[in-house]
Amino acid sequence: MGAPQFSPVTPEFITRLQSLVGEANVSTRQADIDLHAHDESHWPAHPAEVVAWARNAQQVAEVLRLANEARVPVTPWGAGTSLEGNSIPLQGGLVLSLEQMNEIVKVHADDFQVTVQPGLGYKDLNEKLRRYGLFFPPDPGANASIGGMLANNAAGSRTVKYGATKDNVLRIQVALADGRLIEAGCRSVKQSSGYDLLHLFVGSEGTLGVITEATLKLWPIAEFSSAAIATFDDTESAVETVVAVRGSGLEPAALEYIGRDNVRLMNTIEGLYFGENIALLMELSAAHQQTLLDGLATLEEICKEMGATSFRGTTDTAERKAIWEARHGSLEILRRHNPDTRFMSVDVSVPISAYPELVLHIEGVLQEFGGIPGYLVGHAGDGNMHMGLSYRDDASYEVARKINERVVHKAIELDGTSTGEHGVGYGKRKYMQREHGESLDVMRTIKQTLDPNGILNPGKVLPDAE
Amino acid sequence: MGAPQFSPVTPEFITRLQSLVGEANVSTRQADIDLHAHDESHWPAHPAEVVAWARNAQQVAEVLRLANEARVPVTPWGAGTSLEGNSIPLQGGLVLSLEQMNEIVKVHADDFQVTVQPGLGYKDLNEKLRRYGLFFPPDPGANASIGGMLANNAAGSRTVKYGATKDNVLRIQVALADGRLIEAGCRSVKQSSGYDLLHLFVGSEGTLGVITEATLKLWPIAEFSSAAIATFDDTESAVETVVAVRGSGLEPAALEYIGRDNVRLMNTIEGLYFGENIALLMELSAAHQQTLLDGLATLEEICKEMGATSFRGTTDTAERKAIWEARHGSLEILRRHNPDTRFMSVDVSVPISAYPELVLHIEGVLQEFGGIPGYLVGHAGDGNMHMGLSYRDDASYEVARKINERVVHKAIELDGTSTGEHGVGYGKRKYMQREHGESLDVMRTIKQTLDPNGILNPGKVLPDAE
Repeated sequence: MGAPQFSPVTPEFITRLQSLVGEANVSTRQADIDLHAHDESHWPAHPAEVVAWARNAQQVAEVLRLANEARVPVTPWGAGTSLEGNSIPLQGGLVLSLEQMNEIVKVHADDFQVTVQPGLGYKDLNEKLRRYGLFFPPDPGANASIGGMLANNAAGSRTVKYGATKDNVLRIQVALADGRLIEAGCRSVKQSSGYDLLHLFVGSEGTLGVITEATLKLWPIAEFSSAAIATFDDTESAVETVVAVRGSGLEPAALEYIGRDNVRLMNTIEGLYFGENIALLMELSAAHQQTLLDGLATLEEICKEMGATSFRGTTDTAERKAIWEARHGSLEILRRHNPDTRFMSVDVSVPISAYPELVLHIEGVLQEFGGIPGYLVGHAGDGNMHMGLSYRDDASYEVARKINERVVHKAIELDGTSTGEHGVGYGKRKYMQREHGESLDVMRTIKQTLDPNGILNPGKVLPDAE
Repeated sequence: MGAPQFSPVTPEFITRLQSLVGEANVSTRQADIDLHAHDESHWPAHPAEVVAWARNAQQVAEVLRLANEARVPVTPWGAGTSLEGNSIPLQGGLVLSLEQMNEIVKVHADDFQVTVQPGLGYKDLNEKLRRYGLFFPPDPGANASIGGMLANNAAGSRTVKYGATKDNVLRIQVALADGRLIEAGCRSVKQSSGYDLLHLFVGSEGTLGVITEATLKLWPIAEFSSAAIATFDDTESAVETVVAVRGSGLEPAALEYIGRDNVRLMNTIEGLYFGENIALLMELSAAHQQTLLDGLATLEEICKEMGATSFRGTTDTAERKAIWEARHGSLEILRRHNPDTRFMSVDVSVPISAYPELVLHIEGVLQEFGGIPGYLVGHAGDGNMHMGLSYRDDASYEVARKINERVVHKAIELDGTSTGEHGVGYGKRKYMQREHGESLDVMRTIKQTLDPNGILNPGKVLPDAE
């Protein structure tokens, strides 16, 4: 399989595109090209030749058929919040935006399900679901589009209890490269019928097809919730506490690790105190107030037993919100305190038992490179660790790149993965061979089968064939 | 894609097979052929030409390479407990048994994971895990092999809380038709790296590859558990109670529907009483005794409010066990009371909101065919319904077949599936076009890509091309 051969976008292609989606929904204006040339990662921008906005699934399918026949590369676009260059149109061509397909198609309240269009924002969805007492739990922090979350298999703080995006989707409609529009999965929560195409498309980052509709699993919003902060003096105690909490049967709704550098930053927020060293940030939820209080007591007992230097649990809604806003805003706080600095986002995940070794390795590598701060924050309950590696110039970029690579290699060595939740995109392609070995050949075969001309989001997920 | 062309098993093939797995592990004895000619379904037996037992993954891969080159069909074999003819060697050829690969490879206790060989029995695994305080929750009732559970994406009573087999596997090793041995997934609970080959192979019923090793997710055994039986006079109240319990945030570990005919049978067990009509059987589990008691109180409140005629909750271990043994033994009780009768097993699943309509439809169809008993038992919390349709001769078989078909069509019409947990096997192939539409073409393409000679479990999952 050689590199795909693409054709440039021609005036004739644009005319045909306009006839499919309407003149107003096709743009070659510089402002639109610029807006769709980059995501929220540090990876360099690249312009598309044209941007088009689809308004329904049929249009998506027809646009793909057109682009496939014309050999024009297509990069699907949700909200542009990805962190590994997943939505950058590396080969130019067409950016196909789903932003206008942002409606709730149907709330199936009794089924705890909602059917949505792919351009709907994650936060917007949950805002609209509140009156049903339901929510869609994968929590990527940003207001990512649902389509983008599905494409990347996004996850976040609540995955420890509720799973990642892939665990919370039942059915999708997908447009294939050749213009077919198919469905995968069904609204029954159980299905053992045929091959699991649903999970083949979910996480494929728009390289196998474009998701045009999805039915998501929802969860009842817990009646009672609490937040707890436990502080520790050393990595080992903190991480062993994570393992102990996971083993207690408490089923926390969040279980986060906050490293020294971030603890200090987050302490600058008025009214919050995360200790002086390492903090674990936890959430419990329950259907009864008493269950919650019992849970908090058990949690405190476990943390103290494992060596916590302090423990603060709260059921106060305002305090709980402030704590979680601080956690979700940690990257923003980091940027505010370092206005001249850019950050490379690290995202690796390992089995929980390997978490101490991973964290100690990271601390060792940071030391090796002169003790630069790592700004660790991790979804510890899942073995997922993030880091914000700062850089200002080519030399410090090269240091950040090397540290990231060392950490990724270590994660893979520990039976983990190069990416827990940000996806492969452009940035992690170079680790695919190391992580997947011969499976990568099977992935290539499937790509070749479903997208023989390679028009779908080229340059992502799979490394170029050698 | 035409029907695959197979070659008969030759003496030369057997010699080469013996050289791969050892002479003692190849058999053409009638007793072995007979033992591997049928599963636990009503589908007719068909003999293989030879049975071989592999002892490790490398042997599985080499046997597949040999069979692929010789164009000999291969039907993988776990424990033979499937219910749709999934493991019947329809085209003869080789039955490749994994029964001797029945070891725990490693318990990763801190990670709540275990790595096992595919021939290990489900009950045997959980017996061995007990001392770690952990268990593998999908609960197919039978002592299915783990490999078979993965291949069929088996599920059961505890799926409502813990998910199906596909939700409880992190990593597999798979032998492909051409003899490659690959890995899919990884031991990190989070992974957004590359295409989800793990879930492509899980549920593919041995038609895309043979699973040779798997790392499973385990869960802590709950400290405290309770069982509850609520009785109802009508279907609607019972099923609306299911929806209400699911919405309460109680997260029951089981939520089962027992129809009239089965209630009467199960009442024959000494010391148990399931009412005179419809019963819901529920389980709650918790880390604290008080949480459990609070949960039971809430559950009783909900059931009474929704019209339960009685409610009995218990935390007594012996009583709880007796109740669950009765539930799991319901098919056996049915057979004991009907020694001259065979049963066709029905397995459909729908969104929970469609459960009342499904159940009323089933009751209507049973009436239409002369009011024959249906013996309904369902994993109601998942929208999954089973039925045991009795038959004694060709005429009553034809009635059972027609009822099953009507129920499957209704389930698909209600956004559900022809099979919630038994898999497609041989029996449900005829519904694939109706259920999947154009997706079936994509499934066929993937089969063609991974098994171009069609040697893997032929005649299963995909209907013959027309």
